[in-house]
Amino acid sequence: MTFTLHANLAKKIYITDLPLCLVLLEDEKNYPWLMLVPRKPNISRTIDLSFSDQIQLIKELDFVQRMMWKEFNPTQINIAAIGNKTSQLHIHVIARYLNDPAWPNTVWDHSVRSKYDDQSKYSMTERLKHLLSEYR
Amino acid sequence: MTFTLHANLAKKIYITDLPLCLVLLEDEKNYPWLMLVPRKPNISRTIDLSFSDQIQLIKELDFVQRMMWKEFNPTQINIAAIGNKTSQLHIHVIARYLNDPAWPNTVWDHSVRSKYDDQSKYSMTERLKHLLSEYR
Repeated sequence: MTFTLHANLAKKIYITDLPLCLVLLEDEKNYPWLMLVPRKPNISRTIDLSFSDQIQLIKELDFVQRMMWKEFNPTQINIAAIGNKTSQLHIHVIARYLNDPAWPNTVWDHSVRSKYDDQSKYSMTERLKHLLSEYR
Repeated sequence: MTFTLHANLAKKIYITDLPLCLVLLEDEKNYPWLMLVPRKPNISRTIDLSFSDQIQLIKELDFVQRMMWKEFNPTQINIAAIGNKTSQLHIHVIARYLNDPAWPNTVWDHSVRSKYDDQSKYSMTERLKHLLSEYR
Protein backbone atom coordinates (compact mmCIF):
# COMPACT_ATOMS: atom_id res chain seq x y z
CA MET A 1 0.00 0.00 0.00
CA THR A 2 1.54 3.31 -1.04
CA PHE A 3 0.80 6.82 0.16
CA THR A 4 -1.32 8.93 -2.19
CA LEU A 5 -2.28 12.52 -1.45
CA HIS A 6 -6.06 13.13 -1.34
CA ALA A 7 -7.30 15.22 -4.30
CA ASN A 8 -8.45 18.06 -1.99
CA LEU A 9 -4.96 18.28 -0.49
CA ALA A 10 -3.20 17.91 -3.84
CA LYS A 11 -4.74 21.31 -4.76
CA LYS A 12 -2.80 23.05 -1.97
CA ILE A 13 0.64 24.61 -2.52
CA TYR A 14 3.39 22.07 -1.99
CA ILE A 15 6.27 23.34 0.17
CA THR A 16 8.50 20.46 1.20
CA ASP A 17 8.87 17.05 2.81
CA LEU A 18 9.89 16.65 6.43
CA PRO A 19 10.92 13.13 7.58
CA LEU A 20 7.30 12.08 8.28
CA CYS A 21 5.10 14.79 6.81
CA LEU A 22 4.57 16.55 3.56
CA VAL A 23 4.07 20.29 4.18
CA LEU A 24 1.42 22.22 2.24
CA LEU A 25 0.45 25.90 2.21
CA GLU A 26 -3.16 27.10 2.02
CA ASP A 27 -3.66 29.84 -0.57
CA GLU A 28 -4.84 32.39 2.01
CA LYS A 29 -2.83 35.56 2.46
CA ASN A 30 -4.49 36.73 5.71
CA TYR A 31 -2.72 34.15 7.85
CA PRO A 32 0.26 31.88 7.17
CA TRP A 33 -1.59 28.55 7.10
CA LEU A 34 0.35 25.31 6.77
CA MET A 35 -0.82 21.70 6.75
CA LEU A 36 1.24 18.68 7.74
CA VAL A 37 0.28 15.40 6.08
CA PRO A 38 1.98 12.21 7.35
CA ARG A 39 3.11 10.22 4.31
CA LYS A 40 1.46 6.99 5.45
CA PRO A 41 -1.35 5.20 3.61
CA ASN A 42 -4.90 5.02 5.03
CA ILE A 43 -4.45 7.37 7.99
CA SER A 44 -7.46 9.43 9.06
CA ARG A 45 -6.62 10.20 12.69
CA THR A 46 -3.51 10.60 14.83
CA ILE A 47 -4.45 7.34 16.62
CA ASP A 48 -4.03 5.50 13.29
CA LEU A 49 -0.30 6.34 13.45
CA SER A 50 2.18 4.14 15.31
CA PHE A 51 3.37 5.63 18.58
CA SER A 52 6.82 6.34 17.12
CA ASP A 53 5.18 8.17 14.20
CA GLN A 54 3.08 10.16 16.68
CA ILE A 55 6.29 11.23 18.41
CA GLN A 56 7.84 12.18 15.06
CA LEU A 57 4.67 14.14 14.29
CA ILE A 58 4.94 16.23 17.45
CA LYS A 59 8.64 16.87 16.71
CA GLU A 60 7.68 18.22 13.29
CA LEU A 61 4.73 20.19 14.72
CA ASP A 62 7.03 21.66 17.35
CA PHE A 63 9.61 22.64 14.71
CA VAL A 64 7.02 24.17 12.38
CA GLN A 65 5.34 26.14 15.17
CA ARG A 66 8.63 27.51 16.50
CA MET A 67 9.58 28.58 12.99
CA MET A 68 6.19 30.31 12.50
CA TRP A 69 6.41 31.94 15.91
CA LYS A 70 9.81 33.40 15.12
CA GLU A 71 9.23 34.35 11.49
CA PHE A 72 5.63 35.57 11.48
CA ASN A 73 5.25 37.04 15.01
CA PRO A 74 1.66 35.88 15.45
CA THR A 75 -0.65 36.52 18.41
CA GLN A 76 -1.50 32.83 18.61
CA ILE A 77 -0.99 29.60 16.68
CA ASN A 78 -4.01 27.37 16.04
CA ILE A 79 -3.42 23.64 15.52
CA ALA A 80 -6.15 21.23 14.48
CA ALA A 81 -6.81 17.81 13.00
CA ILE A 82 -10.41 17.87 11.80
CA GLY A 83 -10.92 15.75 8.68
CA ASN A 84 -14.71 15.90 8.44
CA LYS A 85 -14.60 16.78 4.74
CA THR A 86 -11.18 15.39 3.78
CA SER A 87 -10.58 12.29 5.83
CA GLN A 88 -6.85 11.88 5.09
CA LEU A 89 -5.05 13.05 8.25
CA HIS A 90 -3.75 16.61 7.81
CA ILE A 91 -2.87 18.88 10.69
CA HIS A 92 -3.55 22.58 10.25
CA VAL A 93 -0.97 24.97 11.76
CA ILE A 94 -2.15 28.55 11.41
CA ALA A 95 -0.51 31.79 12.56
CA ARG A 96 -3.25 34.09 13.86
CA TYR A 97 -3.29 37.84 14.55
CA LEU A 98 -5.42 40.20 16.65
CA ASN A 99 -6.16 42.13 13.47
CA ASP A 100 -6.77 39.22 11.09
CA PRO A 101 -10.27 39.16 9.54
CA ALA A 102 -11.41 36.02 11.39
CA TRP A 103 -10.03 36.85 14.87
CA PRO A 104 -10.98 35.72 17.53
CA ASN A 105 -13.02 33.05 15.75
CA THR A 106 -11.50 30.05 14.03
CA VAL A 107 -10.54 30.31 10.36
CA TRP A 108 -13.18 27.66 9.63
CA ASP A 109 -15.84 30.13 10.76
CA HIS A 110 -14.63 32.56 8.18
CA SER A 111 -15.55 31.58 4.64
CA VAL A 112 -13.99 34.50 2.77
CA ARG A 113 -10.74 33.42 1.18
CA SER A 114 -8.12 35.93 0.06
CA LYS A 115 -5.60 34.32 -2.22
CA TYR A 116 -1.97 35.38 -2.57
CA ASP A 117 -1.06 37.21 -5.76
CA ASP A 118 1.50 35.36 -7.91
CA GLN A 119 4.48 37.32 -6.63
CA SER A 120 3.61 36.89 -2.92
CA LYS A 121 2.78 33.23 -3.41
CA TYR A 122 6.18 32.66 -4.99
CA SER A 123 8.08 34.57 -2.30
CA MET A 124 6.14 32.91 0.56
CA THR A 125 6.77 29.47 -0.93
CA GLU A 126 10.50 30.12 -1.37
CA ARG A 127 10.76 31.58 2.14
CA LEU A 128 9.03 28.56 3.70
CA LYS A 129 11.10 26.06 1.71
CA HIS A 130 14.23 27.76 2.99
CA LEU A 131 13.02 27.92 6.62
CA LEU A 132 11.82 24.32 6.65
CA SER A 133 15.08 23.07 5.13
CA GLU A 134 16.58 23.77 8.57
CA TYR A 135 14.79 20.78 10.14
CA ARG A 136 17.33 18.46 11.81
CA MET B 1 4.38 29.53 40.23
CA THR B 2 1.37 27.29 40.63
CA PHE B 3 -1.16 26.10 38.09
CA THR B 4 -4.52 27.89 38.18
CA LEU B 5 -7.38 27.00 35.86
CA HIS B 6 -8.58 29.95 33.71
CA ALA B 7 -12.05 31.20 34.72
CA ASN B 8 -13.54 30.24 31.31
CA LEU B 9 -12.31 26.66 31.75
CA ALA B 10 -13.30 26.50 35.43
CA LYS B 11 -16.92 26.77 34.20
CA LYS B 12 -16.66 23.44 32.34
CA ILE B 13 -17.59 20.10 33.91
CA TYR B 14 -14.62 18.60 35.74
CA ILE B 15 -14.08 14.90 35.00
CA THR B 16 -10.70 13.78 36.29
CA ASP B 17 -6.95 14.26 36.36
CA LEU B 18 -4.62 12.29 34.12
CA PRO B 19 -0.88 12.42 34.95
CA LEU B 20 -0.33 15.66 32.98
CA CYS B 21 -3.79 16.96 32.12
CA LEU B 22 -6.99 17.85 33.82
CA VAL B 23 -9.96 16.57 31.79
CA LEU B 24 -13.07 18.72 31.34
CA LEU B 25 -16.39 18.10 29.60
CA GLU B 26 -18.20 20.74 27.55
CA ASP B 27 -21.90 20.98 28.42
CA GLU B 28 -23.04 20.07 24.89
CA LYS B 29 -25.10 16.94 24.40
CA ASN B 30 -24.80 16.76 20.59
CA TYR B 31 -21.22 15.52 20.66
CA PRO B 32 -19.06 14.15 23.46
CA TRP B 33 -16.63 17.06 23.78
CA LEU B 34 -13.65 16.83 26.12
CA MET B 35 -10.84 19.27 26.83
CA LEU B 36 -7.39 18.36 28.12
CA VAL B 37 -5.62 21.07 30.11
CA PRO B 38 -1.95 20.45 31.04
CA ARG B 39 -1.53 21.35 34.74
CA LYS B 40 1.45 23.62 34.15
CA PRO B 41 1.50 27.36 34.86
CA ASN B 42 1.65 29.94 32.04
CA ILE B 43 1.21 27.60 29.08
CA SER B 44 -0.60 28.97 26.03
CA ARG B 45 0.71 26.68 23.27
CA THR B 46 2.05 23.14 22.95
CA ILE B 47 5.49 24.61 22.22
CA ASP B 48 5.50 26.14 25.72
CA LEU B 49 5.59 22.58 27.14
CA SER B 50 8.86 20.70 27.63
CA PHE B 51 9.43 17.96 25.09
CA SER B 52 8.78 15.26 27.71
CA ASP B 53 5.47 16.94 28.59
CA GLN B 54 4.60 17.06 24.88
CA ILE B 55 5.18 13.30 24.71
CA GLN B 56 3.02 12.80 27.81
CA LEU B 57 0.35 14.98 26.18
CA ILE B 58 0.19 12.80 23.06
CA LYS B 59 0.01 9.68 25.25
CA GLU B 60 -3.01 11.15 27.02
CA LEU B 61 -4.55 12.37 23.75
CA ASP B 62 -4.05 8.91 22.26
CA PHE B 63 -5.68 7.25 25.29
CA VAL B 64 -8.64 9.67 25.34
CA GLN B 65 -9.26 9.32 21.60
CA ARG B 66 -9.11 5.51 21.69
CA MET B 67 -11.58 5.52 24.58
CA MET B 68 -13.93 7.87 22.69
CA TRP B 69 -13.59 5.84 19.52
CA LYS B 70 -14.54 2.65 21.31
CA GLU B 71 -17.27 4.03 23.57
CA PHE B 72 -19.00 6.60 21.39
CA ASN B 73 -18.58 5.11 17.87
CA PRO B 74 -18.09 8.46 16.16
CA THR B 75 -17.60 9.14 12.45
CA GLN B 76 -14.55 11.26 13.16
CA ILE B 77 -12.67 12.78 16.07
CA ASN B 78 -11.67 16.45 15.88
CA ILE B 79 -8.67 17.63 17.88
CA ALA B 80 -7.68 21.25 18.21
CA ALA B 81 -5.62 23.69 20.25
CA ILE B 82 -6.96 27.15 19.42
CA GLY B 83 -6.79 29.51 22.39
CA ASN B 84 -7.79 32.77 20.68
CA LYS B 85 -10.34 33.60 23.37
CA THR B 86 -8.97 31.59 26.32
CA SER B 87 -5.21 31.61 26.06
CA GLN B 88 -4.50 28.87 28.63
CA LEU B 89 -3.59 25.76 26.60
CA HIS B 90 -6.57 23.41 26.32
CA ILE B 91 -6.91 20.74 23.68
CA HIS B 92 -10.40 20.00 22.38
CA VAL B 93 -11.16 16.34 21.62
CA ILE B 94 -14.61 16.03 20.05
CA ALA B 95 -16.47 12.94 18.82
CA ARG B 96 -18.31 13.90 15.63
CA TYR B 97 -21.15 12.20 13.74
CA LEU B 98 -22.53 12.32 10.20
CA ASN B 99 -25.88 13.29 11.71
CA ASP B 100 -24.70 15.79 14.31
CA PRO B 101 -26.11 19.32 13.85
CA ALA B 102 -22.76 20.90 12.93
CA TRP B 103 -21.46 18.20 10.52
CA PRO B 104 -19.40 18.52 8.33
CA ASN B 105 -18.41 21.93 9.67
CA THR B 106 -16.41 22.44 12.84
CA VAL B 107 -18.25 22.82 16.14
CA TRP B 108 -16.89 26.36 16.37
CA ASP B 109 -18.95 27.24 13.28
CA HIS B 110 -22.05 26.13 15.10
CA SER B 111 -23.11 28.54 17.81
CA VAL B 112 -26.21 26.72 19.06
CA ARG B 113 -25.45 24.95 22.31
CA SER B 114 -27.62 22.11 23.59
CA LYS B 115 -26.90 21.43 27.22
CA TYR B 116 -27.26 18.06 28.93
CA ASP B 117 -30.19 17.66 31.26
CA ASP B 118 -29.18 16.98 34.88
CA GLN B 119 -29.62 13.22 34.65
CA SER B 120 -27.61 12.83 31.41
CA LYS B 121 -24.91 15.17 32.69
CA TYR B 122 -24.53 13.05 35.81
CA SER B 123 -24.46 9.74 33.93
CA MET B 124 -22.04 11.06 31.27
CA THR B 125 -19.73 12.41 33.97
CA GLU B 126 -19.75 9.15 35.93
CA ARG B 127 -19.22 7.12 32.75
CA LEU B 128 -16.24 9.24 31.71
CA LYS B 129 -14.69 9.17 35.20
CA HIS B 130 -14.87 5.39 35.12
CA LEU B 131 -13.47 5.08 31.57
CA LEU B 132 -10.64 7.52 32.22
CA SER B 133 -9.69 5.79 35.46
CA GLU B 134 -8.28 3.04 33.23
CA TYR B 135 -5.34 5.20 32.15
CA ARG B 136 -2.04 3.41 32.86
